[in-house]
Amino acid sequence: MGRTSDAKERILSAAQALIELRGYSALGVAEICKAAGVPKGSFYYFFNSKEDLALAVIDEHWAGQRGNWQRILGDDDPPLQRLRRLFEATEADQRAGQQSCGTVSGCLFGNLTLEMSNQTEALRERLQQIFEAQVDMVEEVVAAARERGEVTVADTREAARSVVAQLEGQVLFAKLYNNTRRLDALWTNCLALLGAASPGRAQEAPVAPAR
Amino acid sequence: MGRTSDAKERILSAAQALIELRGYSALGVAEICKAAGVPKGSFYYFFNSKEDLALAVIDEHWAGQRGNWQRILGDDDPPLQRLRRLFEATEADQRAGQQSCGTVSGCLFGNLTLEMSNQTEALRERLQQIFEAQVDMVEEVVAAARERGEVTVADTREAARSVVAQLEGQVLFAKLYNNTRRLDALWTNCLALLGAASPGRAQEAPVAPAR
Repeated sequence: MGRTSDAKERILSAAQALIELRGYSALGVAEICKAAGVPKGSFYYFFNSKEDLALAVIDEHWAGQRGNWQRILGDDDPPLQRLRRLFEATEADQRAGQQSCGTVSGCLFGNLTLEMSNQTEALRERLQQIFEAQVDMVEEVVAAARERGEVTVADTREAARSVVAQLEGQVLFAKLYNNTRRLDALWTNCLALLGAASPGRAQEAPVAPAR
Repeated sequence: MGRTSDAKERILSAAQALIELRGYSALGVAEICKAAGVPKGSFYYFFNSKEDLALAVIDEHWAGQRGNWQRILGDDDPPLQRLRRLFEATEADQRAGQQSCGTVSGCLFGNLTLEMSNQTEALRERLQQIFEAQVDMVEEVVAAARERGEVTVADTREAARSVVAQLEGQVLFAKLYNNTRRLDALWTNCLALLGAASPGRAQEAPVAPAR
């Protein structure tokens, strides 16, 4: 491996860490290069602009997360258990981030959506594609659960959107309170949003008790 | 009224518009003063720092929104109808913002939470207070609905948190897709999250059909 490809990886990795901690607007190319330990000339060899870098950071982060989601949501467990494991994995990821940098940094895609989606169309489009792909994956599992008579939801697409919206909303609270236990409610809320058919679950106690 | 108090109002109003459009980090004091039409000296007469201004913007915005929430959630309608009217008012606000500036700008408090809550403790604390107050108001209505046997939720506090989380999550999608119709799902999702007791509502079709 030549030094050139190392430099690109180092820029991407530094940029992702900085964007997760401080957002997009707060960063300058010089600061990213300094954190990556590469000269500014290297940056413009690989990226046309900071926006171009942000798109690459998003793509790389999504490549990793999509792999995890596919592994969890595509396995042989009963469909609702797969969703439950997705929420557990989300909580574990946020907890690991908190342990490494002292604060829950939230969902990179949610953060960039609220910070940037109304400002640059390139970022908006890429983020839309990612959330559509997330909804696709969740919808497939919801449809499988409905086939088995485990959920009663009428419109699987809307149901999947609502589950992903609840996930983003609870991650927002986990970040606000720097507390990943906020994500504990996801499973029970998901059952309620899907109209889970199991007696004694969603209908009797739709929302998890406080912990 | 002297010019001094006009200047403070102009700074606050320009700052709020700019923060809603472009976030906090992207802005400088000079740009805010230019938009407000006041000299930079005036800024530091009223505010110690940009963070100090952001706190004032948050407080002013919350004073207005809290009044609206109190009016809607505190009136004499049946409790669930009050929640429905809160969602309708949220959608109308976002639509008005979109019409005036061309793009859905989302919830100022949600935006600042994801952009800034892990970076400055002063902003984090203020935003926590506001979200707690929102949850308080929603919880009161949920408790009233439970008194009437209209919802079956076990823990009214957690239920209220989940309703506010769903609201923030769907506002995120409205911003991402620049489409306030994303908020149409709020009412049906709220009924599902609360385990609404009315037959044929939450249990049979927990998520609104796509529109």
